[in-house]
Amino acid sequence: MSDFLSPDQLESIDAYWRASNYLAVGQIYLKDNPLLRMPLQVGHVKPRLLGHWGTTPGLNLIYVHLNHLIKTHDLDMILVTGPGHGGPAILAQSYLEGSLTQYYPAIEQNENGMLRLFRQFSWPYGLSSHVSAQIPGSIHEGGELGYSLAHAYGAAFDNPGLIVTCVIGDGEAETGTLAASWHSNKFLNPARDGAVLPILHLNGFKIANPTVLSRISEDELSALMYGYGYDPFFVEGDDPLVIHQQLAKTLDEMLFKIRDIQRKARTDSSGRTVERQLWPLLILRTPKGWTGPKFVDGQQVEGSWRAHQVPLSHLEQPRHLTQLQQWLESYRPQELFDTNGALRPDIAALAPTGHRRLGANPHANGGSLLKPLEMPRFNEYAVQLSAPGAVEAEGTRVLGGYLRDVMKHNLKAANFRLFGPDETASNRLDAVYEVTGKTWLAALEAGDTNLDSAGRVMEILSEQVCEGWLEGYLLTGRHGLFSCYEAFIHIVDSMFNQHAKWLKTAAQVPWRTPIASLNYLLTSHVWRQDHNGFSHQDPGFIDLVANKSANVVRIYLPPDANCLLSVTDHCLKSRNHINVIVAGKQPQWQWLDIDSAIRHCMAGIGRWAFACKDDEDPDVVMACAGDVPTLETLAAITLLRQYVPDLRVRVINVVDLLVLQPPQQHDHGLSDAEFDELFTVDKPVIFAFHGYPSLIHRLVYKRHNHDNFHVHGFMEQGATTTPFDMVVINQLDRYRLALDVIQRVPRLSSLVDSARDRYWETLERHQLYVIEHGQDLPEVLEWRWTPTSP
Amino acid sequence: MSDFLSPDQLESIDAYWRASNYLAVGQIYLKDNPLLRMPLQVGHVKPRLLGHWGTTPGLNLIYVHLNHLIKTHDLDMILVTGPGHGGPAILAQSYLEGSLTQYYPAIEQNENGMLRLFRQFSWPYGLSSHVSAQIPGSIHEGGELGYSLAHAYGAAFDNPGLIVTCVIGDGEAETGTLAASWHSNKFLNPARDGAVLPILHLNGFKIANPTVLSRISEDELSALMYGYGYDPFFVEGDDPLVIHQQLAKTLDEMLFKIRDIQRKARTDSSGRTVERQLWPLLILRTPKGWTGPKFVDGQQVEGSWRAHQVPLSHLEQPRHLTQLQQWLESYRPQELFDTNGALRPDIAALAPTGHRRLGANPHANGGSLLKPLEMPRFNEYAVQLSAPGAVEAEGTRVLGGYLRDVMKHNLKAANFRLFGPDETASNRLDAVYEVTGKTWLAALEAGDTNLDSAGRVMEILSEQVCEGWLEGYLLTGRHGLFSCYEAFIHIVDSMFNQHAKWLKTAAQVPWRTPIASLNYLLTSHVWRQDHNGFSHQDPGFIDLVANKSANVVRIYLPPDANCLLSVTDHCLKSRNHINVIVAGKQPQWQWLDIDSAIRHCMAGIGRWAFACKDDEDPDVVMACAGDVPTLETLAAITLLRQYVPDLRVRVINVVDLLVLQPPQQHDHGLSDAEFDELFTVDKPVIFAFHGYPSLIHRLVYKRHNHDNFHVHGFMEQGATTTPFDMVVINQLDRYRLALDVIQRVPRLSSLVDSARDRYWETLERHQLYVIEHGQDLPEVLEWRWTPTSP
Repeated sequence: MSDFLSPDQLESIDAYWRASNYLAVGQIYLKDNPLLRMPLQVGHVKPRLLGHWGTTPGLNLIYVHLNHLIKTHDLDMILVTGPGHGGPAILAQSYLEGSLTQYYPAIEQNENGMLRLFRQFSWPYGLSSHVSAQIPGSIHEGGELGYSLAHAYGAAFDNPGLIVTCVIGDGEAETGTLAASWHSNKFLNPARDGAVLPILHLNGFKIANPTVLSRISEDELSALMYGYGYDPFFVEGDDPLVIHQQLAKTLDEMLFKIRDIQRKARTDSSGRTVERQLWPLLILRTPKGWTGPKFVDGQQVEGSWRAHQVPLSHLEQPRHLTQLQQWLESYRPQELFDTNGALRPDIAALAPTGHRRLGANPHANGGSLLKPLEMPRFNEYAVQLSAPGAVEAEGTRVLGGYLRDVMKHNLKAANFRLFGPDETASNRLDAVYEVTGKTWLAALEAGDTNLDSAGRVMEILSEQVCEGWLEGYLLTGRHGLFSCYEAFIHIVDSMFNQHAKWLKTAAQVPWRTPIASLNYLLTSHVWRQDHNGFSHQDPGFIDLVANKSANVVRIYLPPDANCLLSVTDHCLKSRNHINVIVAGKQPQWQWLDIDSAIRHCMAGIGRWAFACKDDEDPDVVMACAGDVPTLETLAAITLLRQYVPDLRVRVINVVDLLVLQPPQQHDHGLSDAEFDELFTVDKPVIFAFHGYPSLIHRLVYKRHNHDNFHVHGFMEQGATTTPFDMVVINQLDRYRLALDVIQRVPRLSSLVDSARDRYWETLERHQLYVIEHGQDLPEVLEWRWTPTSP
Repeated sequence: MSDFLSPDQLESIDAYWRASNYLAVGQIYLKDNPLLRMPLQVGHVKPRLLGHWGTTPGLNLIYVHLNHLIKTHDLDMILVTGPGHGGPAILAQSYLEGSLTQYYPAIEQNENGMLRLFRQFSWPYGLSSHVSAQIPGSIHEGGELGYSLAHAYGAAFDNPGLIVTCVIGDGEAETGTLAASWHSNKFLNPARDGAVLPILHLNGFKIANPTVLSRISEDELSALMYGYGYDPFFVEGDDPLVIHQQLAKTLDEMLFKIRDIQRKARTDSSGRTVERQLWPLLILRTPKGWTGPKFVDGQQVEGSWRAHQVPLSHLEQPRHLTQLQQWLESYRPQELFDTNGALRPDIAALAPTGHRRLGANPHANGGSLLKPLEMPRFNEYAVQLSAPGAVEAEGTRVLGGYLRDVMKHNLKAANFRLFGPDETASNRLDAVYEVTGKTWLAALEAGDTNLDSAGRVMEILSEQVCEGWLEGYLLTGRHGLFSCYEAFIHIVDSMFNQHAKWLKTAAQVPWRTPIASLNYLLTSHVWRQDHNGFSHQDPGFIDLVANKSANVVRIYLPPDANCLLSVTDHCLKSRNHINVIVAGKQPQWQWLDIDSAIRHCMAGIGRWAFACKDDEDPDVVMACAGDVPTLETLAAITLLRQYVPDLRVRVINVVDLLVLQPPQQHDHGLSDAEFDELFTVDKPVIFAFHGYPSLIHRLVYKRHNHDNFHVHGFMEQGATTTPFDMVVINQLDRYRLALDVIQRVPRLSSLVDSARDRYWETLERHQLYVIEHGQDLPEVLEWRWTPTSP
């Protein structure tokens, strides 16, 4: 090929690349003598060698060429670094372009700062060794692999001017989420969204193995990428000067193709007939640990898995120390840095400036671009009820009306989307389709409903891709909500973990601005998946959530539709949190009018006076959290009213679960005085809970009255059965709750035997009825709350 | 094409298919009048209509054709049904071929039995609506989507005579695990392993959306499958008689190709140069809800997402009832069943018999084929130590030697494999490479190490694929162990959940025989991922595990290498469990000689007399679970010895975590008397724990002394730092433990202030030292246990 880069450009790109590689090696090895002003001594070397060299030179190569591309075309671009453990590369680049010094002024662009850069790397209380929230320009850590491409697409949605370059390591490409994410191109609209520029970086090896994609034929690899809907470009080799020419030319061609796709889509005046195009994708094959030691102690390192982490250790051996010195010198640092240790200005000029730098693009510090949502008044969607239990409603359907209007109010701002694994309608949020469709760029057929290339509801049958998209969308300063079947949200447990870690870390980084919270709506929950059976019954996600940093997580269990409205409105306005809302979709009795619901949700917990009786000095506290447990608790109270009319009972409903934790552990935690006021210090508490009982026990174990907590919840008893049978087989039913009350209140001891007979008779009748009729006992189905007689 | 099937064959296949579709519709709708002996009345229809019709006719089609293929070629085949919610199909088939009646004799092959079949479907205390452990022939539920193909490959490994047909729904194909699983063909050896015959079933729709793979061009789809390493065959259409011909012919061709690949690989005498081949794959495109109602109330149903579940409801409307009757009659049941309601013998003859039936193949009831492993005596791998704390060892490296010999002893039986996401060597189990390599059928290059097409270590960088392979391998009667970084095991949380549910259900199915346990070795754990940072630090998997059925789960925290050996040996011999072993890989002090280790692990918990002092009436109990917490506890004791020489301390180490649970909750649980004997009923217990402290609190909340438990563990404080700093920032360090002891023992109250000064001074010095030197304080690194003076 004829030369694409001029000799000057080529020299400048190569020099910049060498400088970044030099700085990466320095970070891994040096604690002194950063510019090799004296011969390297073992005392200049860190006592503990950490870092991942293998991916670093390739990341540096890509970054340098992106700099050139951005500068040449004045691009608005961010970089998602899938091989995020290549932290030395991204730190070196951020340092060279000045964004690191901007955010961390002590790391000056001189010899002193260079030494600080080296010393802080993988050093306690320094910057992390991976591309974390501490690193400028990042929206993605890459410590746990798999999420880069989904994050990249999430960032590109609704950012028409943005190009999101995404480096995918060939290790990461073996993971499930990544493999599924390729198809995200069926959900990206070139007229409305930005572009994703994927770079599959084949360096050939993982920790200790070759990678699958580097060991299939180019024919198969090319077909695979075409099959995923991309137009693959290949660049490969190990001669830097050749690669520089090829890579620069290829990136330029790919950019042209991207702009061509966008131009065609954007000049189509209809705006609704956008067709999917084959997006360009780069397959870059360079040696692992390129430019590092070729052999160490006679074993191949460059181009092998041995280059993965620290390719050269035991520097106390003079031979190794010499090899390190030679390695560092191979980059010719004296040509790169001036006498003060700053990058020479002619080389530095390669990088873009200001917000065009990959380390300083505001999209990668999404909070800085965040605009609050225009919110409708949620009160206006409230279920009207004259008294507790007067009407039935489907909680998520009511919420759907509200979400429709959240969507509507923000259509112009284009900063709100709903995400779900093919469950938005099943979860009864389909009112949103009145104002927007489901994003769909794949083929259309007659009879398709609500599919629209400009839709704002994102549905793919992968919880992981949904989660990754939403995270990328939020991290670049937008808003969203993810609705999911409760049981299957466990598929993203680890992604949730990593996002929670990101948020905790980001909150400690002064220059990171708050982003919108990640909101989960978990519905089709354990108590109403009776028909789908045991595989669909699991309320354990909130256990995982409760383990995470208290500053980050919130768990809400609204008992009815009005509380669901209030809680969701709050969550959509919140920042830097992960909010988990668990609420059913089936018709159920409604308890609180909207004003009461607002008050109740603001407090997070409260006595439900309408169901209490003489509760200043109660015999028992009946607590409940979750819609079905609330129903069973109130039904138990009606049973008890008949059986023990003089029972003094206090009813407490918990919406904001983590109020139960001590205030030292969670900022929503009730003070001990408040807790004792509600739960007493000595009365039995019969607690009906949505999830596993142990979660309540672990939240309250420091509370005074915790020995008196008797929790009913999911006991891992699941089946294909009826809704009421689900609570029966888990002993959360009204009869068990009533019986437990009678057993725990000492003055009722004489009633225990007869109550047991009475309730067990009903439960046996229930079981026979269910087996016979396949439906719940009429007396259960027909139950309704009746106000306490005055 | 010329006719492949003879007219008789065609008629018989179509009749069998119609019969199965009839029975599927019957299951969804009827509770009476199974043979339509009288006109259908609303009273014959179930009150609650449940089930998934959409995928059912396609599954029936596949099953019938597999029957024909098996019978024609006398094949040993099992079927993995990815769209497992198509339970009505698999139940219908199992009924028709007789395997259902074999396992459930009440469901006779006559009118009475047919009615039972219908009534029990999706009925309380009947069989589940999905293809669960209750269903003959299944190793896979398919309630949660994504795992079918990995399960199929797991089943095929080391089963050279077996063909595992795997139906993958086009919905499931969007999930991450499935997308990653296609590459399993790089790990399947045609000489040694069986074949997987994937059928990608494009019925075009999910719950409420079209599917991605049904809406890309055939060109892209074909390229995608070729890129994945398959040779795709296409069958599509909606005319049954045409499809029958095409499908029968295509399956026959695919079988020929499979046998050709196998023959070539197996006649290669070297046995070690097997090359990967393109395996045949079927893409079957048929309408969703095929043969069901075309329109209902004017809306398209057949061939649309509306056919997903119950296509026709509100049967109280006479028009709908008529439509149901016509639908059922369209299968011409009078031609299919004799007067007794049994399938006519000429049609029934299509199905294979005995163990060749898909519902009765012993591979799908893997326990029936299970052979115990030949086990080396694990004592022989023991670390020799003259006294507690006398030597250091790397736990997992010691275990590696033992696993090498487990592998060696069972090479001939070919029923044991190790699984890991590119971490076997990193986790220091690489001794196994002395006897077997890593399975690898992709291209080889010079310098490759330990890769072998006949290797028995399975490494792909997807925890999900590893888990799926192992589950499939276990469910078909073999043994294995999965080693993984502790933090990233959360990636398979949901797969773990589903396997735990499977095991719980299977244990209640009388004809299911026990299978080998699923063994996790979680290493590179939270306390030794200091260098990789927060993303790699998460001990929460065991919280998830503790939620599952007590009959299924076990959690082991061996404190040293000898205990690790003992525990692993036990786990490899156990059945029907999920065993989680958490153990570090770094050098650490060893505490128990092998005999003591065996005794300790058998009890699961015990006093460590060597570290106790005058502990008949202790001032304090110091408990520990996990290797690092054990180290810190013993180090705290040496501090306390200096500071409070007369302190009476009892040391308890917990290996088998769930002994802490009450015996009513877990069968390993200590009785209250045993618990009180160990932990006292009134003394402070300072508990150093590997994971989140709340797990201990929830396990012991019913114990008498639980108010005195003070647990130190992971407090979600993570960073890139040093090993000791990890315990410091989480307050699990020796100084905090010692101080906590002094604070909790009333008679030491006068020492609290000076102890605090003393220990805090050290901790401050530690922090400064770590920042300065990047390493832990020498006094920490050099600490070692010294026996108590006599």
